[in-house]
Amino acid sequence: MKLIILIVLLGLSFGSMAQDKELTLEDAVLGQWRQFYPSYVTNLAWKKGEEAVTFHSKDGKELMLQNVGAKTAQKLFDLAALSKGLGVEVSRMPFIKWEAANEFSFTSAGERFWMRIEGEKLTQKSVLKMPKEANLDHHKGAQNIAYTKDNNLYIQDKEGAEIAVTAFEDANIVSGQAIARYEFGIGKGTFWSPNGMLLAFYQKDETDVADYPLLDITTTPGTLKTIKYPMAGQKSEYARVGIFNTKTKQTIYLNVKGPKDQYLTNLGWGPENKFVYIAVVNREQNHAWLNKYDVKTGDLVKTLFEETHEKYVEPEHPVWFIPGNNNEFLWWSERDGFMHLYRYNTDGKYLGQVTKGKWVALKILGLDETKKMVLVQGTDESGLNTTVYSASLAGGKTPKRLVKEDGIHQFSLSSEGKHLIDDYSDLKTPHATRIVTLKGKTKNNLHTAKNPYEGYKISMPELVTLKAKDGTPLQARLIKPADFDPSKKYPVIVYVYGGPHAQMVTNSWLAGARLWMYHAANKGYLVFTLDNRGSSNRGFEFESVIHRQLSKNEMEDQLVGVDYLKSLGYADTDKMAVHGWSYGGFMTTSLMLKHPDVFKVGVAGGPVTDWNYYEIMYGERYMDMPKENPVGYEETQLKNHVKNLKGDLLLIHGTVDDVVVMQHNLSLVQAFVSNGILMDFFPYPMHPHNVRGTDRVHLMNKVLTYIEDKLK
Amino acid sequence: MKLIILIVLLGLSFGSMAQDKELTLEDAVLGQWRQFYPSYVTNLAWKKGEEAVTFHSKDGKELMLQNVGAKTAQKLFDLAALSKGLGVEVSRMPFIKWEAANEFSFTSAGERFWMRIEGEKLTQKSVLKMPKEANLDHHKGAQNIAYTKDNNLYIQDKEGAEIAVTAFEDANIVSGQAIARYEFGIGKGTFWSPNGMLLAFYQKDETDVADYPLLDITTTPGTLKTIKYPMAGQKSEYARVGIFNTKTKQTIYLNVKGPKDQYLTNLGWGPENKFVYIAVVNREQNHAWLNKYDVKTGDLVKTLFEETHEKYVEPEHPVWFIPGNNNEFLWWSERDGFMHLYRYNTDGKYLGQVTKGKWVALKILGLDETKKMVLVQGTDESGLNTTVYSASLAGGKTPKRLVKEDGIHQFSLSSEGKHLIDDYSDLKTPHATRIVTLKGKTKNNLHTAKNPYEGYKISMPELVTLKAKDGTPLQARLIKPADFDPSKKYPVIVYVYGGPHAQMVTNSWLAGARLWMYHAANKGYLVFTLDNRGSSNRGFEFESVIHRQLSKNEMEDQLVGVDYLKSLGYADTDKMAVHGWSYGGFMTTSLMLKHPDVFKVGVAGGPVTDWNYYEIMYGERYMDMPKENPVGYEETQLKNHVKNLKGDLLLIHGTVDDVVVMQHNLSLVQAFVSNGILMDFFPYPMHPHNVRGTDRVHLMNKVLTYIEDKLK
Repeated sequence: MKLIILIVLLGLSFGSMAQDKELTLEDAVLGQWRQFYPSYVTNLAWKKGEEAVTFHSKDGKELMLQNVGAKTAQKLFDLAALSKGLGVEVSRMPFIKWEAANEFSFTSAGERFWMRIEGEKLTQKSVLKMPKEANLDHHKGAQNIAYTKDNNLYIQDKEGAEIAVTAFEDANIVSGQAIARYEFGIGKGTFWSPNGMLLAFYQKDETDVADYPLLDITTTPGTLKTIKYPMAGQKSEYARVGIFNTKTKQTIYLNVKGPKDQYLTNLGWGPENKFVYIAVVNREQNHAWLNKYDVKTGDLVKTLFEETHEKYVEPEHPVWFIPGNNNEFLWWSERDGFMHLYRYNTDGKYLGQVTKGKWVALKILGLDETKKMVLVQGTDESGLNTTVYSASLAGGKTPKRLVKEDGIHQFSLSSEGKHLIDDYSDLKTPHATRIVTLKGKTKNNLHTAKNPYEGYKISMPELVTLKAKDGTPLQARLIKPADFDPSKKYPVIVYVYGGPHAQMVTNSWLAGARLWMYHAANKGYLVFTLDNRGSSNRGFEFESVIHRQLSKNEMEDQLVGVDYLKSLGYADTDKMAVHGWSYGGFMTTSLMLKHPDVFKVGVAGGPVTDWNYYEIMYGERYMDMPKENPVGYEETQLKNHVKNLKGDLLLIHGTVDDVVVMQHNLSLVQAFVSNGILMDFFPYPMHPHNVRGTDRVHLMNKVLTYIEDKLK
Repeated sequence: MKLIILIVLLGLSFGSMAQDKELTLEDAVLGQWRQFYPSYVTNLAWKKGEEAVTFHSKDGKELMLQNVGAKTAQKLFDLAALSKGLGVEVSRMPFIKWEAANEFSFTSAGERFWMRIEGEKLTQKSVLKMPKEANLDHHKGAQNIAYTKDNNLYIQDKEGAEIAVTAFEDANIVSGQAIARYEFGIGKGTFWSPNGMLLAFYQKDETDVADYPLLDITTTPGTLKTIKYPMAGQKSEYARVGIFNTKTKQTIYLNVKGPKDQYLTNLGWGPENKFVYIAVVNREQNHAWLNKYDVKTGDLVKTLFEETHEKYVEPEHPVWFIPGNNNEFLWWSERDGFMHLYRYNTDGKYLGQVTKGKWVALKILGLDETKKMVLVQGTDESGLNTTVYSASLAGGKTPKRLVKEDGIHQFSLSSEGKHLIDDYSDLKTPHATRIVTLKGKTKNNLHTAKNPYEGYKISMPELVTLKAKDGTPLQARLIKPADFDPSKKYPVIVYVYGGPHAQMVTNSWLAGARLWMYHAANKGYLVFTLDNRGSSNRGFEFESVIHRQLSKNEMEDQLVGVDYLKSLGYADTDKMAVHGWSYGGFMTTSLMLKHPDVFKVGVAGGPVTDWNYYEIMYGERYMDMPKENPVGYEETQLKNHVKNLKGDLLLIHGTVDDVVVMQHNLSLVQAFVSNGILMDFFPYPMHPHNVRGTDRVHLMNKVLTYIEDKLK
């Protein structure tokens, strides 16, 4: 009898052998962006002036060209031709960027090469040694390169000479770097004028910003690395904008009126090199002015328009001048409740709304060949998918969705505005790339990735739409074990982020999840994630409900997810864990302390535990200043709630976290200690706001082992 | 049959009802020095010039006097008399100090009062306002008070005027405070000459000592508190000695020759106010010179003698001038293998060994009435007990043990040298106080404390003497559950310290144990502690075996303890935990990593994990410098052994530990992380090298809960 059972089991085992490979935690953590990343076409790009794309051949030895609609690709050039053109042996095809019809550039070994192609012959147009410094900003036309060393800004001119734009000995004056801690869409600190002769740059004065000490334990003795960290309600940095003229070598600073701690955001040049446009935002972040400045005098020409909102305004995109028109631009605004585009002229005259609808504009792709329509990548109404819309610059018409297929799409428009590269995935498509017409008709299927988990035991995610208490649809994702059996009961791991500017659940391959969740599911858990109100890509109202009361509505929505789990029947809702990082750590800890009967275990990484300790720019947008919102700060200060803890809580922090400083966690641990309440803490020495590299395997092992131990 | 057994058990249970109160963890941690501290006679002291002691009456309203041999005590004065003498109402008897035959002093509300008593009448001789500053050093004869503010040294003279002795703006120059991090017996930085007119003081220059950063998380944002921390092999502090003359207001600095990082230890005055004696120790700590300096010129008069040892020399006591003899003093030395006293004259002439034997001299009590015998408190040969010896100043005789009774005794000699107060406890005596003759005969039984655990369930400790591999006797303590049943198997907690200058096991009440160990025992553990070689009160060879190879022999001896536990039969040696703090944390972690099969769980608090991170003075004594002992440093660097971990390890650290800085633990955690090995860590925010106050309940709860969870 025993023998027979054994044989049956063996039989089953053999039968499913093809799907039997276990996805280890190491596979999951380190492999997601490596061996398990779906294959793609390398260096795929539109060639300028043609309806044709180029890309690397599979062996990486040729650059291929494929005309739209052609059945096959052809070799444009190979390594031999490139080596000949350069005069040196090249062993690997570089990542090229098309600069003009038959001209491309690439970087190799610290040099930027500009090549011309005629027939099969390549010739070198120019080569430029790139400075080995930070924040390089290269204007290819003028061949000027801006960069920073420590707190100062420099330019390397086309002769290779170094020009010091600033020379502040005081390290508190920082030039040429991003300001406002990368908020308001700010990602850099230098902005070349279109002709490359003038350099606009951000400068911040951090004299009044408090120091925060971080300890480097790798030296003997440990040494101090001090960072500037402006905490909510405290003194901030002071921004200004300089304009450096590469001919006169003179800098003038824009004469921006207003309190010194206001924000100078979304700097953009006008096409004629005469004006820069800045969205000035007050420190309260409820008022924005789009200002036009004369770069010769530095004076304000005009405030083109203003935007206000009782909660907050948050410009995140600079002016986008309409190609071929020096007097009109598009402006991004959430003023109708969703991020959309509005047309203005350079005198500030409003010319109409261009995109519209209960979806969110994400990216301007360019104009179509008629120059009358702008192509815009955006979400659909569910927020789960992205697509492309064609909208009339003249306005008045409902933008037309060009690609009907759901999924997460990334588009790139040909230089002539006739076709789009459509790069996409969905729950069942790991990755695919095609060329489509502006009517959404497929012209070429360039690539379809194989399932990267072939042979591995892995389940497919499920998407589910739930309803918040007020009826708002909420998107959620459920991952079951690969060998899911609905007659069993599974403990649950809820992974949460929950904060603004992020979306966890999408109609994409893996549904937006990290691979460790599939590994954890196979260990016998349901792994669930819900994008509560406050998360992105669902419009301003959905997001801004969090204002002045962070976590309140977010938790309410997370509990809708918990109710759903309870309704399933196969979820062991007496054994639920919640885990999140950063804002998700704040959510995790808030849930453990404010809804102590829901989760048995919580693991919070790098959590905000007190908004007094978080930065001014992000913190005051959502919470206002501490003195303006004392109740909100008090209510969200987690140390006021430690006595509620019922389950097991593990707090985790990188010891040199410069985003959510470790003070958040240590002050919360202190509150637990002084109230005599046991909980756990683990530090990741010398890691910043996230644990990366191979140590991340340790982190996820720590998290999952803790959950497993405590759910026993 | 079952019924009968039940009745028997109930009978036993009822019989012991009086012992049924549970000793909670809070009782154990907070109560040991409070409600569970054995009662004692308050403010017991010899009256000057009489064979009589004084003490507070039980209600604290009278000062009692008891003549030696008298059957009862009598009232010396009461609160009313004191109030009358002071001219203000006094509600509580102060702690008095006899200054002369009928004169005493006491401090109240920041003032130092000096009173005279005649019959029943008290009169106030003087009153002095004490500065509200640090490091007060009051010379009562001259009424000069030395004190420090920040890094400088001041004196308040008898008129109350403040005189600045030093005025260094550079905070690196610190005057009037202890130097050498309290090593070499150094406990203060000011030394009044016998006549109170000259002030000798230590000064250290910390310019070259590296800063170590500590984070204060109680401010917003967290702020930095930097300490000076000299790590082994790095640059040290530089000491000198100043002599301030209160008449001329001039300071001269002693002209001490030698490398600037040598140690100036055990400063002591000669009785004639002309010379100071300093034990100069080289940085290598293997050579000491007893130097005599002229305080007028600052010059060296003579090196009286030198001591060297291939391992280390460690002078810890200043010269002790023989009362009534300005030319002779006793010197403490371990030169014959045990700490003993040697007589010299002020020209450095050796006059003979005074105490001798395989026991350790601890304290000079004074001379007997003949002035020929010195009374010395010391250990017995087992190290478990302390007693008192009478030794001939002339030498040549074996010192005589005066008190035969074992136990831990503290003695105080009457001013005439005729009787001793003997304050003692042993395993069965919580606390007792008597007066004995110099022949050890009891004259008065002053006090016998009741068992403070009356009604509580608590066991008696057991002492056991084991043998190290080389035959050295090792003292150990075993605590069993109060309801111990030898037919059961009990898991084990080994509590370890193991480092020099400490002894865990003595023949005293509780046997030297902390009360939490008795609490833990009642939860069903055997709690065991062994004083391995390296611990104190057993002589130089016993201690110095650790030299250059910390933990090696110490662990070997701890394993002797483990073998003993295995031999008992009732110890569940598959379930053993080890716990220790500081050096004991180093021992705990070393045992977990170097003998990974012995303990299933380790909890290490504030551990040294790398002797490169420990201080120069202590570290280089035992380990030499890193460059002199690379193998020793490497072998004891625990991060080199993380891969051996088999059991569960919890590391604990106070976040502002300024003794064993948190870098020790964080660097070890980093090694575990980078090797992918799970373990645990818990920080005590804003606690220094130990966790005190009510947070200590949390600490011990954390420790014991961890052990309980992981031994399951």
